[in-house]
Amino acid sequence: MKIVIVGASGTIGKHVVAALKKDHEVITAGSKSGDYQVDISSTESIENFFKQVGPFDALVSTSGNAHFGPLSALTDTDFRKGVDSKYMGQINLVLIGQHYINPKGSFTLTSGSLAIDPVAYGSAVSSINAAIDGFVRAAAFELENGVRINSVAPDVVEESPAYFPYFPGHIPVKMDKVAQAYVKSVLGHQTGQNYFVVE
Amino acid sequence: MKIVIVGASGTIGKHVVAALKKDHEVITAGSKSGDYQVDISSTESIENFFKQVGPFDALVSTSGNAHFGPLSALTDTDFRKGVDSKYMGQINLVLIGQHYINPKGSFTLTSGSLAIDPVAYGSAVSSINAAIDGFVRAAAFELENGVRINSVAPDVVEESPAYFPYFPGHIPVKMDKVAQAYVKSVLGHQTGQNYFVVE
Repeated sequence: MKIVIVGASGTIGKHVVAALKKDHEVITAGSKSGDYQVDISSTESIENFFKQVGPFDALVSTSGNAHFGPLSALTDTDFRKGVDSKYMGQINLVLIGQHYINPKGSFTLTSGSLAIDPVAYGSAVSSINAAIDGFVRAAAFELENGVRINSVAPDVVEESPAYFPYFPGHIPVKMDKVAQAYVKSVLGHQTGQNYFVVE
Repeated sequence: MKIVIVGASGTIGKHVVAALKKDHEVITAGSKSGDYQVDISSTESIENFFKQVGPFDALVSTSGNAHFGPLSALTDTDFRKGVDSKYMGQINLVLIGQHYINPKGSFTLTSGSLAIDPVAYGSAVSSINAAIDGFVRAAAFELENGVRINSVAPDVVEESPAYFPYFPGHIPVKMDKVAQAYVKSVLGHQTGQNYFVVE
């Protein structure tokens, strides 16, 4: 299976690569590193990326970021960082990628448990995560040729200690456990699912 | 209570006005009609709007739209119509409005049941509705001075028959029932809630 991983060098992405590369052809991509470079905030860059990569069986996105900070100081500009990156960046990987993916392929996007389990300072992130999960649930039955789509929604992960103080009582999720949710999406047969990963 | 209703002349808005105006000072607003005009896709317009309106006790938004159409033809441009209007328009009413609202005031936004109960052609709308609901759940405990926030998520409403063919098996919701969900949010004491309204 030819599996494209966008965000392959990131905190989560590198573990997804490790979990899949033994048995599959893994194509790595990122904003600055990997086999291919792609700027997910640009539809032109995404279009060029898929043209270069050619047909593929699965796309995993562990890419994009969003603003984390107090609501009282939150502005449209802050909020739109995540809208343009983690939200519309990942949506556009699907909107454009649906025209390049092989039949019976799959898309796996990354949201996060803040979608349903919010913490202070996370209102933009919670909203964007929920937006991704909502898209996945709806897009699943419109994708053609048996193509599937799921999202992985991890709680705070063990390799992001800077966020621990903002997640009181959350048990940081082991990276191997997070990676297996992506494996489940890519190699399994479910579609339209949001895989929440908590310890 | 001084209640500002943005989208007051719309399908839902006019019923919310009718339900609240007997007992409260209702300020109507819209893109082209009402006591005040506001373009929710412009932060400058929203800022000017709140300066003109002055302090208020509740803001209800029944404003904004989003693209409804097949996933296979969906583009970034289509998707962003709803992101700029129904999504960020309503978010910005809160981000900016939080600095003008009276203590113990409330915000009530409009999402829709597609957030959790999708139909074909609705992937952008489902995503945007879920984004609004996710924001509400997270923003609720960061709003200061006892200010509350909820969303109302109606199923297809009886006064939008053009949408009925796209909602097979959905029983169109009575307008009075939808309006009461806004009344519950404004006059009740709950916060961080998504009120799904179905028949």
